[in-house]
Amino acid sequence: DITKQEIASFFGKKLVFNEEVWEQVQKIFAARNMPTPEINRSQAMVPEDFIALKNERGTAPGLFYEEGEKSFFAFAGVPVEMKHIFLTQAKPILEKKYGTQDKVIQRTIHTFGIAESALAELLSDFQPPENVNFAWLPQPGRVDLRFYGTDAQAIEKVFNECYSRVQTYAWGFDDDTPVSVLHHILREKKLYLSVAESCTGGLVQKMVTDLAGSSDVFLGGVVSYANEIKVKILKVKAETLSKYGAVSEECAREMVTGVRDLTDSDIAISTTGIAGPEGGTAEKPVGMVCFGFSVHNNIWSITHIFNGDREIIRQQAAEFALLNLIKYLQGHKF
Amino acid sequence: DITKQEIASFFGKKLVFNEEVWEQVQKIFAARNMPTPEINRSQAMVPEDFIALKNERGTAPGLFYEEGEKSFFAFAGVPVEMKHIFLTQAKPILEKKYGTQDKVIQRTIHTFGIAESALAELLSDFQPPENVNFAWLPQPGRVDLRFYGTDAQAIEKVFNECYSRVQTYAWGFDDDTPVSVLHHILREKKLYLSVAESCTGGLVQKMVTDLAGSSDVFLGGVVSYANEIKVKILKVKAETLSKYGAVSEECAREMVTGVRDLTDSDIAISTTGIAGPEGGTAEKPVGMVCFGFSVHNNIWSITHIFNGDREIIRQQAAEFALLNLIKYLQGHKF
Repeated sequence: DITKQEIASFFGKKLVFNEEVWEQVQKIFAARNMPTPEINRSQAMVPEDFIALKNERGTAPGLFYEEGEKSFFAFAGVPVEMKHIFLTQAKPILEKKYGTQDKVIQRTIHTFGIAESALAELLSDFQPPENVNFAWLPQPGRVDLRFYGTDAQAIEKVFNECYSRVQTYAWGFDDDTPVSVLHHILREKKLYLSVAESCTGGLVQKMVTDLAGSSDVFLGGVVSYANEIKVKILKVKAETLSKYGAVSEECAREMVTGVRDLTDSDIAISTTGIAGPEGGTAEKPVGMVCFGFSVHNNIWSITHIFNGDREIIRQQAAEFALLNLIKYLQGHKF
Repeated sequence: DITKQEIASFFGKKLVFNEEVWEQVQKIFAARNMPTPEINRSQAMVPEDFIALKNERGTAPGLFYEEGEKSFFAFAGVPVEMKHIFLTQAKPILEKKYGTQDKVIQRTIHTFGIAESALAELLSDFQPPENVNFAWLPQPGRVDLRFYGTDAQAIEKVFNECYSRVQTYAWGFDDDTPVSVLHHILREKKLYLSVAESCTGGLVQKMVTDLAGSSDVFLGGVVSYANEIKVKILKVKAETLSKYGAVSEECAREMVTGVRDLTDSDIAISTTGIAGPEGGTAEKPVGMVCFGFSVHNNIWSITHIFNGDREIIRQQAAEFALLNLIKYLQGHKF
């Protein structure tokens, strides 16, 4: 409310009551089966000569004001509301006013499984033309390569050239995410996934179900945080735990076959590791995670050490599990 | 790198090679068992007269420059690195230079289970004194009430006054999070938790294991996304599914007793709902989630309808499950 008052006074305007906004605010409360509190009337106050941008996700409208060539926008701070108002209201205004002739086009290659420095070496003599911008976007554990500009043909040419060099490490393009790519492959091949997690504590399965339609490709799984759960539900052998420990490729492989058999899935993933910050040893440091994979009758395991705090280690480990499975599925026919 | 060059030119400085930063960069690569790429030498370039702030989490140092009373800081953009450099390097500089006499003190009450407007009504005649600032911080599904200022005694007094009014809805204070509060209660009461999730897809268990030491309070659980998994692993009756559907309190209650029996836990939570955007009906709209709770031999269920997109519905549902359990445990002796 203070922001709105300041905006009004900056432009030398009074705040006036806007009937349409008030109706929209009341609608939102009605949908929640709540009477609209009187205090919310202030949300219907809009600086004179401003246009209120309809907020379908919340009660505070966006604001738009123009003086000649200049446009001024103000949005509510809640990210989901701000994004919605921008896309549905502000973007069309901007496109109409300033045109979209020189639209910026961008193409992205997502890579994984190669260190940033090794990728840099692979592309050391790669030089895009002047009309194509090249951005190097390192994410934790992977690198995105982005080309953008206004010359669509030139971008496509450079994009293909770069792709042919990094193909081995590419897992997706543009808006692809690990989960969207995995869903696409599983759906196409009609394969069902299950997951057994220890250190990632449910995060792999949370990621897999981030997208609608997950039930077409995902059956479910087990979070076997305690060793007793690994033994009782996943049928990990007590002997394996005592001989190799819970954080071992041996355990990861028994977890993955355990969850596959329990759920009758075609494909399975398992994770077991040390997310930290405590619990590391010289032999098994914090960040060490063992992964098990099962695709039909092919079982394998990988160990990887991640850097970062607990949250980052878990995020990277979950993504690593999905990306490794994706790279395998992309390289094999069924 | 462009930012650093611009900073240097803004202050009219040259970039000079800093031996200490270079050593730190090499150390980071050595810890990853990688040779330091030559390209990283640019990270050791620091504007003349600037002090490089050691970055123990990455390769790009922070920058500090002062002219008289003015201080200028620049940090790497990676949040975990920025935060680390600020806390270990920048904060001590600021405290030393500008003093900490008028330290701002803040106290927060976290509430849950009461609509924002109802809470506002409850506090309508509550007026903190002028030297205590009062912030109303709505989070999705809950509201935080914050008091801050420099007069510790006045803050404490208002804080207690407010707490006595909202006590019924308060679940924590200050830096408490739902997970930290839940861990604290379970650890104190020596109780073990298990979880059965459908629509939240692993998120409840991910949250529970966000904190180190989760294995003291959490055994594990099941993500029963497909109905067959609910029946096979959690022993939900096929009849329950056909009669009431998977999204029903009946199913939630069978899921929660199922996971409790499977894991032998003292306490269990279950979730089953429609995360959307598809799959809603007039009777069971998108955002509707049924929860089951089991504490010793007490079993109960709740249905709640959440607003927002898939991600927000799932986040709110997972937090709702934890906060409901917390409120129950806070109100009961064992």
